[in-house]
Amino acid sequence: QKCQCSSIGLEKSSSLSTGKSFQLDDVIEAQQFDRDILTDIFEVAREMEMIEKNSSGSKMLRGYLMATLFYEPSTRTRLSFESAMKRLGGEVLTTENAREFSSAAKGETLEDTIRTVEGYSDIIVMRHFESGAARRAAATASIPVINAGDGPGQHPTQALLDVYTIEREIGRLDSIKLGLVGDLANGRTVRSLAYLIAKYKDVKIYFVSPDVVKMKDDIKEYLTSKGVEWEESSDLMEVASKCDVVYQTRIQRERFGERIDLYEAARGKYIVDKNVLNVLPKHAIIMHPLPRLDEITLDVDADPRAAYFRQAKNGLYIRMALLKLLLLGW
Amino acid sequence: QKCQCSSIGLEKSSSLSTGKSFQLDDVIEAQQFDRDILTDIFEVAREMEMIEKNSSGSKMLRGYLMATLFYEPSTRTRLSFESAMKRLGGEVLTTENAREFSSAAKGETLEDTIRTVEGYSDIIVMRHFESGAARRAAATASIPVINAGDGPGQHPTQALLDVYTIEREIGRLDSIKLGLVGDLANGRTVRSLAYLIAKYKDVKIYFVSPDVVKMKDDIKEYLTSKGVEWEESSDLMEVASKCDVVYQTRIQRERFGERIDLYEAARGKYIVDKNVLNVLPKHAIIMHPLPRLDEITLDVDADPRAAYFRQAKNGLYIRMALLKLLLLGW
Amino acid sequence: QKCQCSSIGLEKSSSLSTGKSFQLDDVIEAQQFDRDILTDIFEVAREMEMIEKNSSGSKMLRGYLMATLFYEPSTRTRLSFESAMKRLGGEVLTTENAREFSSAAKGETLEDTIRTVEGYSDIIVMRHFESGAARRAAATASIPVINAGDGPGQHPTQALLDVYTIEREIGRLDSIKLGLVGDLANGRTVRSLAYLIAKYKDVKIYFVSPDVVKMKDDIKEYLTSKGVEWEESSDLMEVASKCDVVYQTRIQRERFGERIDLYEAARGKYIVDKNVLNVLPKHAIIMHPLPRLDEITLDVDADPRAAYFRQAKNGLYIRMALLKLLLLGW
Repeated sequence: QKCQCSSIGLEKSSSLSTGKSFQLDDVIEAQQFDRDILTDIFEVAREMEMIEKNSSGSKMLRGYLMATLFYEPSTRTRLSFESAMKRLGGEVLTTENAREFSSAAKGETLEDTIRTVEGYSDIIVMRHFESGAARRAAATASIPVINAGDGPGQHPTQALLDVYTIEREIGRLDSIKLGLVGDLANGRTVRSLAYLIAKYKDVKIYFVSPDVVKMKDDIKEYLTSKGVEWEESSDLMEVASKCDVVYQTRIQRERFGERIDLYEAARGKYIVDKNVLNVLPKHAIIMHPLPRLDEITLDVDADPRAAYFRQAKNGLYIRMALLKLLLLGW
Repeated sequence: QKCQCSSIGLEKSSSLSTGKSFQLDDVIEAQQFDRDILTDIFEVAREMEMIEKNSSGSKMLRGYLMATLFYEPSTRTRLSFESAMKRLGGEVLTTENAREFSSAAKGETLEDTIRTVEGYSDIIVMRHFESGAARRAAATASIPVINAGDGPGQHPTQALLDVYTIEREIGRLDSIKLGLVGDLANGRTVRSLAYLIAKYKDVKIYFVSPDVVKMKDDIKEYLTSKGVEWEESSDLMEVASKCDVVYQTRIQRERFGERIDLYEAARGKYIVDKNVLNVLPKHAIIMHPLPRLDEITLDVDADPRAAYFRQAKNGLYIRMALLKLLLLGW
Repeated sequence: QKCQCSSIGLEKSSSLSTGKSFQLDDVIEAQQFDRDILTDIFEVAREMEMIEKNSSGSKMLRGYLMATLFYEPSTRTRLSFESAMKRLGGEVLTTENAREFSSAAKGETLEDTIRTVEGYSDIIVMRHFESGAARRAAATASIPVINAGDGPGQHPTQALLDVYTIEREIGRLDSIKLGLVGDLANGRTVRSLAYLIAKYKDVKIYFVSPDVVKMKDDIKEYLTSKGVEWEESSDLMEVASKCDVVYQTRIQRERFGERIDLYEAARGKYIVDKNVLNVLPKHAIIMHPLPRLDEITLDVDADPRAAYFRQAKNGLYIRMALLKLLLLGW
């Protein structure tokens, strides 16, 4: 039941109106986005890719101040947000170790911290170790809050950049064949991605994972209820030969505790290497949320279908788009 | 006698000339400000509240660089200063853990560190764990230094924002009835506030605190010498019914060491809650330096007389004013 | 043999073409600079000294983003680079503890980290604990990389600022008499300086150090091969009376392990004090890479020949020059 906390909270809410008429107030969870909103956000992200140094676009957030309130370190995510803000001319207040925030250490509630920080800034990007923290922050703040990951819960900007990358690389989101590989039990990334891609038509998902970290039933049931075809497979080569996207993930050692043996068995099982590239369709791509250990071999990097560093870069554009939408509107 | 180090060093110096003719060189201790200077600073702070995004005011410190040299973490204070600098168009160099500053760790003196950092910046905001450190830094630096708290010593910008908040909320500083509640022995905030408010006419102060953390004699004697009426009371309700300002503080657990029993007894004794609100005059306010634990109950927050988050925000305006005055003059 | 890792890798490469026609791609090691390139860089540094607040020069890097990727703390170096970037109108993304970079902690390679960070920024300034790390980063990155120190290896911007300071203070680099004092075995600073100064004519170097930390043979042999006169001396007073530059260094306690007795003997042996000033030529200078403990007494600071804080400030101009050259070219 404790695992439930790593659920992405299926179908809780999605009551935003669609199209340019909707106003984005906070970014809390992947579920708040429907197809139309995603389309609109991706269009803005695409515009962000075009912004030149010292163009007027690069000054659109001049005068705005973003507070990055990180209760656990995540340098990659923090740099991505801070780069996004600065690329648009905005400024940043950084707290990399808000957990040791003198106030928090003294017992201050998250709500009180938010009330103080919102007095200093125009938007809060928060990373927290507790599921639900971002929602609480957004309920308190009168300025926009972006969830940059809250514990085992949500990391919605990662989910958005994943879907954006598929659309950007493959050219469509309907009729996608998607192979999810690796740690499907613990990776919130693949869970969110499965959830979001189910909003599109004619999608087929293959789950390829060691037995100890299989995709959980809640997502499978959700996909079925949405009419999304899915299949479990233990043959990565066969799956790769049929997919548009192979989404590889890291087996997370920290999930195995003392059972190093299980970890070692699991991590070596499905590796994306030259052999996989050999069967992968020419138009297909390899994705990975990074950091990568050896689940994708280094000799794959030079192949044009290796999309994971472009995927990381897309995170910049998605975050630029969200900052723009939250602070300036459409 | 060790407590003396937490003295605010009464009446040591106050030789600045008053009015717009005075030049602010550094901000080191509450005692450097007299009534006229406070009036002038508060006027500038008021102007700071009016500055709009992308107005010319928001660019007044463009090209200036502030170094935040923090030898102990204080995220709240740091963010407030950094926000102030950026709201005026200035830039910031941040060191959150200057104590581990490789140079300091290797035995470099504070003076040498200051001589290096002043080469990189236009103003230094320093937090230090040793009383007197800010004064030493200011004596060394040829650029302005602001004391953002030096150990048990001074935290002058907090003192200024407290007085500013009373003036801003009540509309005057003469003829104020002020209830100081909680840890009056260790809180430098309430000591500085008592000291500064004594510069005004017809002030009455009530001390309400558990016996173990009573206001010390030096401040009481100082107030008496200045003709300020004061009184100790154990009846928070009665005091609240007569005050313009109830200034609540946190009982600091770290001061009690092993004596958790004394801490628990002290912390529960005087709580600001709905009952206190019921007797509090309509025009009065509740203040608190934050962070707050449970010495003010959450149901007080919604009352318009709960001024503590506005008080925190006033810290931003006071710091903007000081940065402006130190870098650009009047 | 382990000491070899602290070698500055003599004569490995220096194949850059000279003069304004050369394009600076990365700054990795002192050896990449020859006389002509140094002359050109110093000319740009000199221009940097002239840049006024809010002049057009102070905006030349507007729109550019520098990532400071520090795998070990070095606040002094970091602030110097960040100040340099901001003085030119650029922006900064900071990671002070990249070693705990969640990704690195999870086993990500330096190369993968670089590939991600280069997506967020225009130039990377890297400090690393491993010799050779900067070269690996530069080989990976498609944006410029500056080595801000890699373990016992290189710290080329320190070497440049040292040579720049001699040229700036003495007015020439040929015919210099240079006394290197203190820890000559472990200090990469003096090793790099000896290496670079050997590119000039008619140079004479005196080594003055306790026996346990004498200059190593590789540098001595190199100097001899280049026709540079050098001499070991145990008489600091006599050396000081003949030098243009006395370059004092800190005896590094951390190099002595358990042998505190050896450390104490070594550190007290050669102190620059008033007596040294008395014999030092009027035009000569005292340099020190900082931090300084007591190897230069405090009463030396007021003498105009004490150049070490001006030297630190020159680091700012050198770094401004390098950032300009790497991002905008000549």
